[in-house]
Amino acid sequence: MPIITLTTDFGLADGYVGTMQGVILSIAPKATLVDLSHQVPAQDIRAGAFVLYQAVPFFPPDSIHLVVVDPGVGSQRRAVAIRTSQGTFVAPDNGVLSYVLAATDDYEAVSLTNPAYQMPQISTTFHGRDIFSPAAAHLANGTPMSELGPQAINLVRLPLSTPEFSPGGGLTAHVMHVDHFGNLILDVTADALEEEITLELAGHRIQGMSRTFADVAPGKLVAYVGSSRDHVEIAVRDGDAAQELGVSVGDQVLIHRIQ
Amino acid sequence: MPIITLTTDFGLADGYVGTMQGVILSIAPKATLVDLSHQVPAQDIRAGAFVLYQAVPFFPPDSIHLVVVDPGVGSQRRAVAIRTSQGTFVAPDNGVLSYVLAATDDYEAVSLTNPAYQMPQISTTFHGRDIFSPAAAHLANGTPMSELGPQAINLVRLPLSTPEFSPGGGLTAHVMHVDHFGNLILDVTADALEEEITLELAGHRIQGMSRTFADVAPGKLVAYVGSSRDHVEIAVRDGDAAQELGVSVGDQVLIHRIQ
Amino acid sequence: MPIITLTTDFGLADGYVGTMQGVILSIAPKATLVDLSHQVPAQDIRAGAFVLYQAVPFFPPDSIHLVVVDPGVGSQRRAVAIRTSQGTFVAPDNGVLSYVLAATDDYEAVSLTNPAYQMPQISTTFHGRDIFSPAAAHLANGTPMSELGPQAINLVRLPLSTPEFSPGGGLTAHVMHVDHFGNLILDVTADALEEEITLELAGHRIQGMSRTFADVAPGKLVAYVGSSRDHVEIAVRDGDAAQELGVSVGDQVLIHRIQ
Repeated sequence: MPIITLTTDFGLADGYVGTMQGVILSIAPKATLVDLSHQVPAQDIRAGAFVLYQAVPFFPPDSIHLVVVDPGVGSQRRAVAIRTSQGTFVAPDNGVLSYVLAATDDYEAVSLTNPAYQMPQISTTFHGRDIFSPAAAHLANGTPMSELGPQAINLVRLPLSTPEFSPGGGLTAHVMHVDHFGNLILDVTADALEEEITLELAGHRIQGMSRTFADVAPGKLVAYVGSSRDHVEIAVRDGDAAQELGVSVGDQVLIHRIQ
Repeated sequence: MPIITLTTDFGLADGYVGTMQGVILSIAPKATLVDLSHQVPAQDIRAGAFVLYQAVPFFPPDSIHLVVVDPGVGSQRRAVAIRTSQGTFVAPDNGVLSYVLAATDDYEAVSLTNPAYQMPQISTTFHGRDIFSPAAAHLANGTPMSELGPQAINLVRLPLSTPEFSPGGGLTAHVMHVDHFGNLILDVTADALEEEITLELAGHRIQGMSRTFADVAPGKLVAYVGSSRDHVEIAVRDGDAAQELGVSVGDQVLIHRIQ
Repeated sequence: MPIITLTTDFGLADGYVGTMQGVILSIAPKATLVDLSHQVPAQDIRAGAFVLYQAVPFFPPDSIHLVVVDPGVGSQRRAVAIRTSQGTFVAPDNGVLSYVLAATDDYEAVSLTNPAYQMPQISTTFHGRDIFSPAAAHLANGTPMSELGPQAINLVRLPLSTPEFSPGGGLTAHVMHVDHFGNLILDVTADALEEEITLELAGHRIQGMSRTFADVAPGKLVAYVGSSRDHVEIAVRDGDAAQELGVSVGDQVLIHRIQ
């Protein structure tokens, strides 16, 4: 049986995630469930997309990734399933699969409209339980995706964060994610950078890239190639860079070649 | 093997929940474990009861629901197992199963007193590990409930939150749960209401019921039939109603027919 | 298949833990995964060690305990696997296994250097995913530990918290852990104490040991033998002792015989 991963903004307090797991296991009792995150900030579609972006490459390609960050639940937004060479994704069509779609031109997608693969009663506010969980479970059982509904085209894609070339030379990158440690993940990858660079953010300057945290003294800023698809990251060794610099997602980082 | 769900107020930091899972899997290695919530507010029996109330209908009826919100641990309060048509429940006899008991007149219940189905050493403060987990695991293995101890009668039931008819007409409902999004779940169900109503709480007024969040503008209050057993809910679209209104569990909501 | 437990300071927001589970299940699809804690305070090696100390005795001895609290990731600190009669442990060699090592003189240990049992690309900042998870999964599959790398000697051990005899008589114990409820777990065990004692901390005095919380009135301080290896604990019944007393890990508790 394939793995089903779950990513939501539901938190862990109310039993909403466990309820989804009850629905899944009622349909596919032998599925292996993995929680990616249930602490996506409430209704933050981009943050949910980023969790997937980092995690999906480390799962077998027959895995099913269930994603419910869904501020438009009950409205006209579609519920979809998408299959690419990376995996199968079940989610609202609101851009939460933007990185998945950006990684490939070759995918199939359907709208989840067939009531035979939904809960008998559909609420207007908890499609995670009533539509997405049954769809993921039936796909795990081997139900062909085309059974779940008609082909879906023109899927919603959010503009992805990318660095810009500065008029005066250098690059303006952005913080695309702040993690649990307060480390700043930038939207620039290592291969886009020259060897000797300076990074500036929030009035601070970092000279050169290091290999890892421990290459600088405790409390010092450090830039390095992160663990996630070669994105550049900025941290404070043994500290919380986001908090100490007052930096958050979207903030700019100026990158210059050392002169 | 049946599913065993876990609901506690233990939090996830200390390893207490994982320890319970170690005990369960030592006895029933093939059990499927599902976490409902470990963030029930500390010693809040009603909140624990509510998590079960929402989640249990979405699990197979042969599931075993282990609930440990247990401020009286080590005192004379009983440890019990209860079987109804909805499922099997293992919990302290302190009212945490009040909704389960309110849903049926037909159940069997035992006191968990047989040391053969407990840990060899019983602490005075962690019966979740020493009594409840082994009981759940043995039940999952098919041990008859009557083996675990003698019949238990006169189980503790808490008075459940219910709306009251107001002398001047209309209904006084109450907030029975505030969820992760700050949505307010009321103790009144949709079938008790007329078509055209006004809801008043904390100095705010909501005209009529909507279908879902997206039916109102961002930042606006909205009332709708929630996903949980048709209870009426109040939310702020893309916001946190509890925080913005300063409302918490037990607060009143006045419901009138529109005149 | 053995159980693999996971203990980290990664939090649950970013998908880091789920990513590790993806790596493990890609290699050992039938492993049973149990989360001990992912809320170890960031880079707090002692706190991670304590989670293991409490939980490990409740798992089968063929379990594999994966621990990633790793401030020195990417530096010269070793990655190791250790096997004792209690279980198998996969962790950075930074003292996080101090309690495991203190419990036995009989263990085997290897450095995790064999690239055949690592991810093809090793990041400098996420060895939890690239080195420790594959090692745990291969061990679960039955790979002999000696395949993973050469014998490791002189493992790092942190000095463990222990009570001291006071010059004027009595014992000075310390808070070794504060749990989710604000209960204080001391570094002294019950067998080291006389029957009739007084405990003093933060200007408060507790007369005698009780059996459990419910033996004192709500809001009162209570000392009792905890559920964890007979360590003495201090709590406020239905309250949060750490918060109410302003006490934290390392603080002293003076224990005297009642005169």
